[in-house]
Amino acid sequence: MYSSPIQNLIDEFNKLPGIGPKTSERFVFYLLKKPKEEVEKFIWAIKCLREKITLCSQCFNFSEKNPCFTCANPKRNHSMICVVAEPQDIAVLEKTKEYQGVYFVLGGLLNSIRGITPEKLRIKQLIKKISLRQPPVKEIILALNPNLEGESTVLYLTKLLKTREIKITRLAQGLPMGSELEYADEVTLSNALKGRREV
Amino acid sequence: MYSSPIQNLIDEFNKLPGIGPKTSERFVFYLLKKPKEEVEKFIWAIKCLREKITLCSQCFNFSEKNPCFTCANPKRNHSMICVVAEPQDIAVLEKTKEYQGVYFVLGGLLNSIRGITPEKLRIKQLIKKISLRQPPVKEIILALNPNLEGESTVLYLTKLLKTREIKITRLAQGLPMGSELEYADEVTLSNALKGRREV
Repeated sequence: MYSSPIQNLIDEFNKLPGIGPKTSERFVFYLLKKPKEEVEKFIWAIKCLREKITLCSQCFNFSEKNPCFTCANPKRNHSMICVVAEPQDIAVLEKTKEYQGVYFVLGGLLNSIRGITPEKLRIKQLIKKISLRQPPVKEIILALNPNLEGESTVLYLTKLLKTREIKITRLAQGLPMGSELEYADEVTLSNALKGRREV
Repeated sequence: MYSSPIQNLIDEFNKLPGIGPKTSERFVFYLLKKPKEEVEKFIWAIKCLREKITLCSQCFNFSEKNPCFTCANPKRNHSMICVVAEPQDIAVLEKTKEYQGVYFVLGGLLNSIRGITPEKLRIKQLIKKISLRQPPVKEIILALNPNLEGESTVLYLTKLLKTREIKITRLAQGLPMGSELEYADEVTLSNALKGRREV
């Protein structure tokens, strides 16, 4: 129904995660009404993204430099590796300003239904990194999603790494800040009980 | 926290209607993981949109040609004008395949709170179009949203046009297809009663 330049961009926006045809339509008409300079700024930002961003060969995070700023920073504790599923996870962990070690992006979580086997993740590269690292790695924090995929990945990695003399830890599970006990699900509450700490 | 090419594009996506920072982030990481050719196709589609699409000077719809295909089509009934608020409305009306007349895009609806006065809409252009049109316009269909803004625009336009010898109609209000009487709101139901038809 729409002329092809409009329909083409609707189709392109439609490919973005979680975006349907109606929202795509709204984006296209939004851009049609914007001044040309703003649309050019948008195009320029997408171009820059693909031209300037690369993968860090040490932690596999997206970065402007290789190695990335975290991996190249001598003030970070390089004997502590925090394993995450996706690059976005690093951003939220960095926001806490709690963590001073380095990171490693697995590139996903094990999921046998969707065919994500250990070979599809960067497990080989993780093992290699741990084996080669000097000074040796002392602790590996598994900062993976507390769901089925995260749990199976934690199990798999723990089995794989426990022969080495490395402390393997995982993020605490319990009640999230600001939540109400009354509405907590049983698994969360049972984890909070198991992980209770002295005050 | 993110490097500037990533943050820039997050900020750009964030400007799209209904999109927050988290969704923008998801879009950016989606594009980072896509092959370069696909991202270039996306850029190309945005470029095309702004280079190829123009406003039709007769109906103010977005189009590749001026006048647009509908306005240039001699088979359409040019003595019947369907007034809509936005170009998107034309697309849904065309899908019905019911309407054979032409269109006119007002560019919005009256809204005194948001400062959308009659001068901000294309009311002057509409009057001019109606005055100049040969053969003369016989019917104007006001296909505006059935809400407060739509109602005030209908009232305003009806007052303005009623001195002329033109039939002014509006879309029927009533129960939408597939709905249940039990859950209809009072206004819809009262409109459905008022507009009841013999079977």
